[in-house]
Amino acid sequence: MKKNITLIEEIAGSLSKVRKARPIVDCLTNRVTINDCANILLACGGSPIMAEDEREIEEIVGISSAVVLNMGILKQDVISAMIKAGRCANQQNKVVLLDPVGMGASALRNDTAKLLLQMAKPSVIRGNMSEIKALCGVQGTSRGVDASFEDAVTEESLQKQALLVRDLAKSYGCVVCGTGAVDILSDGEKTVFLKNGHPMLCDVTGTGCMLSAMAGAFCSVAGAFAGMAAAVTVMNLAGEKAAMDCRRQGDGIGTFRIKLLDYIYTLKETDVLEMGAVFGGE
Amino acid sequence: MKKNITLIEEIAGSLSKVRKARPIVDCLTNRVTINDCANILLACGGSPIMAEDEREIEEIVGISSAVVLNMGILKQDVISAMIKAGRCANQQNKVVLLDPVGMGASALRNDTAKLLLQMAKPSVIRGNMSEIKALCGVQGTSRGVDASFEDAVTEESLQKQALLVRDLAKSYGCVVCGTGAVDILSDGEKTVFLKNGHPMLCDVTGTGCMLSAMAGAFCSVAGAFAGMAAAVTVMNLAGEKAAMDCRRQGDGIGTFRIKLLDYIYTLKETDVLEMGAVFGGE
Amino acid sequence: MKKNITLIEEIAGSLSKVRKARPIVDCLTNRVTINDCANILLACGGSPIMAEDEREIEEIVGISSAVVLNMGILKQDVISAMIKAGRCANQQNKVVLLDPVGMGASALRNDTAKLLLQMAKPSVIRGNMSEIKALCGVQGTSRGVDASFEDAVTEESLQKQALLVRDLAKSYGCVVCGTGAVDILSDGEKTVFLKNGHPMLCDVTGTGCMLSAMAGAFCSVAGAFAGMAAAVTVMNLAGEKAAMDCRRQGDGIGTFRIKLLDYIYTLKETDVLEMGAVFGGE
Repeated sequence: MKKNITLIEEIAGSLSKVRKARPIVDCLTNRVTINDCANILLACGGSPIMAEDEREIEEIVGISSAVVLNMGILKQDVISAMIKAGRCANQQNKVVLLDPVGMGASALRNDTAKLLLQMAKPSVIRGNMSEIKALCGVQGTSRGVDASFEDAVTEESLQKQALLVRDLAKSYGCVVCGTGAVDILSDGEKTVFLKNGHPMLCDVTGTGCMLSAMAGAFCSVAGAFAGMAAAVTVMNLAGEKAAMDCRRQGDGIGTFRIKLLDYIYTLKETDVLEMGAVFGGE
Repeated sequence: MKKNITLIEEIAGSLSKVRKARPIVDCLTNRVTINDCANILLACGGSPIMAEDEREIEEIVGISSAVVLNMGILKQDVISAMIKAGRCANQQNKVVLLDPVGMGASALRNDTAKLLLQMAKPSVIRGNMSEIKALCGVQGTSRGVDASFEDAVTEESLQKQALLVRDLAKSYGCVVCGTGAVDILSDGEKTVFLKNGHPMLCDVTGTGCMLSAMAGAFCSVAGAFAGMAAAVTVMNLAGEKAAMDCRRQGDGIGTFRIKLLDYIYTLKETDVLEMGAVFGGE
Repeated sequence: MKKNITLIEEIAGSLSKVRKARPIVDCLTNRVTINDCANILLACGGSPIMAEDEREIEEIVGISSAVVLNMGILKQDVISAMIKAGRCANQQNKVVLLDPVGMGASALRNDTAKLLLQMAKPSVIRGNMSEIKALCGVQGTSRGVDASFEDAVTEESLQKQALLVRDLAKSYGCVVCGTGAVDILSDGEKTVFLKNGHPMLCDVTGTGCMLSAMAGAFCSVAGAFAGMAAAVTVMNLAGEKAAMDCRRQGDGIGTFRIKLLDYIYTLKETDVLEMGAVFGGE
């Protein structure tokens, strides 16, 4: 598979686009990682707003460039607000990103995902590979909200999983990203493999939620496909740099998550051009 | 404008007052930054409690020295608890601080702020300059919960904004603080300009909420005016020191927010006396 | 009192047990410290899930090894979910840990604790000594959710407090841990004193909640008594190491809480064997 230089350059270029546009992203997201989501949006150059009250959602979507629907919340009033946020964003041609957190772990989560797919019509879906499999109706081996070991992407299973991601993208007419050891991104036609990253990203809570929040900002300035590729690559490169520091100093996940935010804040175009490992899709 | 040495000395002295009294501050605050608010209260020497259930609010206010009403929450049950908390605190002559988060961004927020001003009778209002303008009924250019660029305080606009802050303080018979590049504080009579701080404070979520939480502690030991001046100065000096470390080491906002807590924990009276930049009001 | 070498060795051994088993722990916990609870579970090798919706609680408990009921939340719907979670876990012989946050601070909290003791039948109770005293019906001197100074464990009061902890364990037929300057653990028969730790652990919000979350993981692999002893010792040793670093570098609580997570992630069996200070109980 060939390195996708065009896409890597587009990813590099999106860094300054986000920092210049400072897109407001409304995150309807779970309370476990809500602070991290706000901080990563600020770190990459975006502007977070966490409004989820149905009574103000229309006004807030009006001033936002993207909405991120994170299914970690299952309260009925927030689900209603999510549907309304999706509809408002659809009408205004704004990015709607769905993160189906915990999909496959309970009937309630499965039902909620289906409802949101139907009513909020996401332009991007971002989940770990277990969640993506569950969305496809394939029996994953879900261990709750974390991706299972069995869902780790191996070279052997890579092509099979790429087909799942592509087919899901086709079914819903949107961009789909399934994250794991290798991240797979498809718009139903072209499929790319994003090979940056580090296992420590799984040792910290909320890196998936943070990625989805940040993707809202990047998709709003670079389009759904390139924007999602950019968010994944930026997260993964920051993770690689943070993990390198931690290994050198013998630090653990406390320091790792601080460094992760640091490197997202300081990441340069040249970092993406030199280290970016995006394959296929041409 | 002259440096206000008397107030700077009062600010310096309030550090040990808070650390000695360990005032309990009940924060009815939003879930995005609630953890940061609790930690900054501990860092400055206060004792946080985050009770917001109407059924226990009377008992909790009874053991607290101040209540902080952060409008990031718009749930009806919490609004009711805020009103009750304000009333209890009023009856007991305790500090009630209102932080009108997102004021101007939606009708719901505007209505909620008006309701709280009327029913909870705050002794202190603390918002960014966009929110303060919106409270004044002046059309700000709100970009959601973040202060807009246009609201940045320039030397030219400083006097105009100071009048707004002063008039708001007069109207509600309380202390008002509008934060920005220069922070403006007024009790309706005297007005001071607090010129410490660093732009990185805007690159982290929740520094406004954290300031309001910390102000609850300082106002309870030093009075509303000097206490608010102290909280702003302590936050700004810690921000300056944290930013200096980050610039030296090339770190980003992850490290910045950790260092911010560190410096609030370790700040000395001499730091305030040497670095404090408080002008006017004499 | 003699050092309990057998228990120290068991604690050391439980580190690898948790890291191997990666037990899923469902935390029904408060929003102030929920992110810290998830991260400490990941740091020690467990796998957090924060599901609290009654509609999915049966399925989630089914895939979990322990449930942690943190009384920081007092919403009626979460209390109902806590009772259901406790009952499901009881039926499946899984760990149920109750953390009676703020017990003694309001009638609502006292009533809720009684309800959960009766309905969710915890196998482990973990609170600070003020909360434990309040559970015993002894009048503590509660200052809200923080342990009071008067409740600090001195050598003189140690034996008296140990009797309270033991009697509470006997009454409810479970393991009880009261934390303070010295942590006391009893199963109603044997009682041990855990003497590691550092005062900085009280300068950070949520160390109690984090301990309870982590205890869920340890108890599920090592049994309630040894597991609770392990969680306390792991937390305390990480606290000692983090505080040592902070003292050396003049850092405050921002850095302390990052280092705390780091050291829980990197703690070794030999650290426990060399530094563990567990006394009595043989």
